Amino acid sequence: MSATEYTVDLRDIRFVLFEQMKVHEQLKGVARYAEFDRETYDMMLDQAAMTAKDVIAPLNKVGDSPGASFDGKGNVTTPPGYKEAYHAIVEGGLLAAGMSPEVGGIGLPHVVDVGMHEMLTGACPAFAIYTGLSRATANLLQTEFCPEFFRPFAIQRIMAGDWAGTMCLTEAGAGTAVGDNRCRAERTEDPNVYHLTGEKIFISGGDNDLTKNIVHVVLARTSDAKPGTAGLSLFLVPKYIVNADGSSSDVRNDAFVVGIEHKMGINGSATCTLALGANGVCKGWRMGKEGQGMNVMFFMMNEARIGVGIQGLSIGSASYLNALDYAKERVQGSSIDNMKDANAPRVTINKHPDVRRMLMSMKSQVEAMRSLVYSVANRLDRAENGDPAEKEYLLGLVELMTPIVKAHCSDVGWEVCSTAVQVFGGYGYTKEYPVEQNLRDQRISAIYEGTNGVQAMDLLGRKMRQGGGMLFMTWLDECNKELERAKATKKMDEEVTALERARDHLGQTAMHLGALGMQGNIKGAMLQATPFLNLFGTVVLGLHSVWQARVALEAIEAGAAGDDLKFYKGKLANARFYAKNVLPRATSLAKSIQAGDESCMEEGLFE
Amino acid sequence: MSATEYTVDLRDIRFVLFEQMKVHEQLKGVARYAEFDRETYDMMLDQAAMTAKDVIAPLNKVGDSPGASFDGKGNVTTPPGYKEAYHAIVEGGLLAAGMSPEVGGIGLPHVVDVGMHEMLTGACPAFAIYTGLSRATANLLQTEFCPEFFRPFAIQRIMAGDWAGTMCLTEAGAGTAVGDNRCRAERTEDPNVYHLTGEKIFISGGDNDLTKNIVHVVLARTSDAKPGTAGLSLFLVPKYIVNADGSSSDVRNDAFVVGIEHKMGINGSATCTLALGANGVCKGWRMGKEGQGMNVMFFMMNEARIGVGIQGLSIGSASYLNALDYAKERVQGSSIDNMKDANAPRVTINKHPDVRRMLMSMKSQVEAMRSLVYSVANRLDRAENGDPAEKEYLLGLVELMTPIVKAHCSDVGWEVCSTAVQVFGGYGYTKEYPVEQNLRDQRISAIYEGTNGVQAMDLLGRKMRQGGGMLFMTWLDECNKELERAKATKKMDEEVTALERARDHLGQTAMHLGALGMQGNIKGAMLQATPFLNLFGTVVLGLHSVWQARVALEAIEAGAAGDDLKFYKGKLANARFYAKNVLPRATSLAKSIQAGDESCMEEGLFE
Repeated sequence: MSATEYTVDLRDIRFVLFEQMKVHEQLKGVARYAEFDRETYDMMLDQAAMTAKDVIAPLNKVGDSPGASFDGKGNVTTPPGYKEAYHAIVEGGLLAAGMSPEVGGIGLPHVVDVGMHEMLTGACPAFAIYTGLSRATANLLQTEFCPEFFRPFAIQRIMAGDWAGTMCLTEAGAGTAVGDNRCRAERTEDPNVYHLTGEKIFISGGDNDLTKNIVHVVLARTSDAKPGTAGLSLFLVPKYIVNADGSSSDVRNDAFVVGIEHKMGINGSATCTLALGANGVCKGWRMGKEGQGMNVMFFMMNEARIGVGIQGLSIGSASYLNALDYAKERVQGSSIDNMKDANAPRVTINKHPDVRRMLMSMKSQVEAMRSLVYSVANRLDRAENGDPAEKEYLLGLVELMTPIVKAHCSDVGWEVCSTAVQVFGGYGYTKEYPVEQNLRDQRISAIYEGTNGVQAMDLLGRKMRQGGGMLFMTWLDECNKELERAKATKKMDEEVTALERARDHLGQTAMHLGALGMQGNIKGAMLQATPFLNLFGTVVLGLHSVWQARVALEAIEAGAAGDDLKFYKGKLANARFYAKNVLPRATSLAKSIQAGDESCMEEGLFE
Repeated sequence: MSATEYTVDLRDIRFVLFEQMKVHEQLKGVARYAEFDRETYDMMLDQAAMTAKDVIAPLNKVGDSPGASFDGKGNVTTPPGYKEAYHAIVEGGLLAAGMSPEVGGIGLPHVVDVGMHEMLTGACPAFAIYTGLSRATANLLQTEFCPEFFRPFAIQRIMAGDWAGTMCLTEAGAGTAVGDNRCRAERTEDPNVYHLTGEKIFISGGDNDLTKNIVHVVLARTSDAKPGTAGLSLFLVPKYIVNADGSSSDVRNDAFVVGIEHKMGINGSATCTLALGANGVCKGWRMGKEGQGMNVMFFMMNEARIGVGIQGLSIGSASYLNALDYAKERVQGSSIDNMKDANAPRVTINKHPDVRRMLMSMKSQVEAMRSLVYSVANRLDRAENGDPAEKEYLLGLVELMTPIVKAHCSDVGWEVCSTAVQVFGGYGYTKEYPVEQNLRDQRISAIYEGTNGVQAMDLLGRKMRQGGGMLFMTWLDECNKELERAKATKKMDEEVTALERARDHLGQTAMHLGALGMQGNIKGAMLQATPFLNLFGTVVLGLHSVWQARVALEAIEAGAAGDDLKFYKGKLANARFYAKNVLPRATSLAKSIQAGDESCMEEGLFE
């Protein structure tokens, strides 16, 4: 551990995977994962940890300033070392770890892949945006929507590090309102190929020098399409035209970066404006049917949204561990017990109550986020067990949790990163320690891949209503089952009571908002979407802290000792702290939502 | 107004000064302010607004990058334009506005001076640190503690722009623990002059090119002094030795900057490491008696702490107004009423409930902060009316509110700045708009001039206990009086009820913590210091929103119309929104504090 260097919490990652979720036993029942064992998982995690620390983490500070650069002629240069690291990831099999063996991957379960991804992201968030988008593009091309022409080689090319991928949704006039996309796609003689024109903005990695070729996944509108999202289609737009054998030709497709943004953080990730067909022909291969663009894009977006949640977790975890180490090293003042004795021995700041409160607030929230994020990936794995009913059940929970993972983990990650800066005091504000960059890098999470406001509307307006509230009932059921297990320990009464109360507040608030909607007061309901997501997220993390504490309690009762015992006691402390210090926020959120205040909607206020 | 340019809210500033506090009438009763009238105040405010917008604001972006620079030889260069702007402030009389006419000032009331200071700070926070420190140094030199030698000319020199001032407390091993200061002061033949040695860090403006000379206010320890704060003395250390007529000689005192910090924000403000007597003689003139250093320093620190609160208010206000303007201009999506109609007209985002919720959250908190900060300054003015009992009463309230102004306004300012970024979406994360810099600049507020944790300990451990809880009782009394006035309107029942409930929670929590202290559980009490300050701050801003709404209601009933009516209605909306959406946080804070959780103190957790 170190206050300046990147640290991973492999102990906690292993706890989640092998003690809490027992994936090495549980996934034996899923054919595609049956051959993996704990040893393989451990080996992959160790490899990812080493790569994260030795190969990726050194890029973080150098990539912050001056960051990715643009030559004014369409070419982006990534920070020094990015290219080598990208290919080290490829060659180490880490990019393809989650892909199936048929396309050159290892076929690891999502949950283990997420463990690896957490470490790589925390090491250098800006760098991980490139690998994350390449993975997401590959995953999309694994579906039936991959254009015929690309099918034989697309995923393999990405996995080999020949192609990177991007996601092109946003336009200057169409951010949150994706349906207002204006990029045009004209049909050509080849029914699969279109000519695209228009401009996309905020495209991460829109150009880069990491790979020979780039495949852009682009939303555009055919000339006779319906207005709104229903008129959008999706296209695969390569930077260089691809030959029939999958190799890249020297023929440049007319998709050129015309500028990059100067940002608060993630400066190593080039945020590009991409002009399509501005000076020549920009060819795009249709993915899925015309008008199906948003549906297909959602495959990629859901993965990206979970990815943003992972970012909150991993940057938060990195900041927490740096702050913890700093607090153990930094001597300042005497113990509060000797406050009035000017000669009292000086102590490290991890002895001061206010600092411990900050550390605990970070630890309890980071570890609960880890449990949440991994549990979503684990549900995706369990959904592969061949039972269609269970699949529907599990994927429903994933759908419900996706906006919460994206928005709540980005908000909590932000809070954690800011608390870490505070632990460092004045030094935290300087570039001498990584926590200030972490804070800046983390700020994007609440914005991209659909702002947190959009996530809240997705949760309240779509996911909560799906199947007449079925997804929420399913989650409540899961929550109640864990409460029963925790109750059975007879040692978690206070935590159980606090979580039950918070769950009830959540349930009542959901009913209240549902009733508002039925009365036709959509505005009144949607006004509370963000507070409702905060409320739900707060309760969800409370559930995860109880789940972890219960597992830890079982381990303690089974005779844990030494460092293990210390670790498990930390989990009990997490749940206690969270129940007493964080869960009460759920009460106040429930009250303010149910108060139904609409004063901000008053005419004339912000006009 | 503009989404990119600095905007001041003169309408609201005038409301606070002339409608809410009626300072132009009220201060007629204070001899030193009796000759001022509304016209003079308005003129000064207009001048400050114009200077802020035209002279200071243009420095903000250029000063951010690359910021102040250091030549490695002791010399700091401020960003382009800083020097000219500093002298424009001096020549416009704005630096001296609050100083008495005897020393070349105008003798304006503190509250009007704060109004001007708010605008200058919001225009360029990094720049205002220089002027703020010069003012604070001048104010300190106005006291009996000014060294005899400097008395005839010190303030005049600062006000004339010949000297800047700095505050030198922190050392590498003595940040929060000021008592651990090691800088040494050796007596010389001249009983007023000492030779200083040692190193100070984090010194804002430790060197700069704004003025010919700089006077550093330095804490140091005489060789035979007691340990701890009781052994500290204070010294005035000029950069150039001062001649008997107050002119600066060419003799360089050995106080040299040896490095500056690279920071997240306020990059125009040079944060310096200052070496004293490292290569020669560093002369310091004692201020006050030996061992009195901390007491004298507190004069300056209290002003600086209020200054940090002003920073939270002004940067928050600037961000809010930029976001408001952006929301009025930015077209995105259709109204939620036409959600399903893809052809519905596109609207500006100020029509969307989630955006209005964010705007309201910013507006209500910024305006309540303004009321709080100005009310503290106003109490300082009223304290000058010659009645000793009233003076004690009013200064007691100022003492109680100082840590709240410093810490709560810096926290709320941070929340507001982050919300403003969110309103801008992706653009908010770019350097195209000022809100990302505001967010970075604002992050320092919770750290410097005593971290917010230190403020919380000052509030709970000192101010709440002062006179057996007398200050708190006084505040409660003021709160109750305003509640009675609001009740009398018979139109604010919900806001009154909510504030009464929050006040009760605050009172019970204070009693609970007091009891903990009496039982000897100092650790348990101090563990809750930060949540307690948050709780108190939340209630205080609630009180101010009720106060403002009551005044607005009276104006409406007196027949306000047009833009005024719109403005007053905004105040009613503030109070309603705050009562329903922010005050509930007080309940959850009170509950979690009273739950008395000490899980983070468990042995072994962070060791």
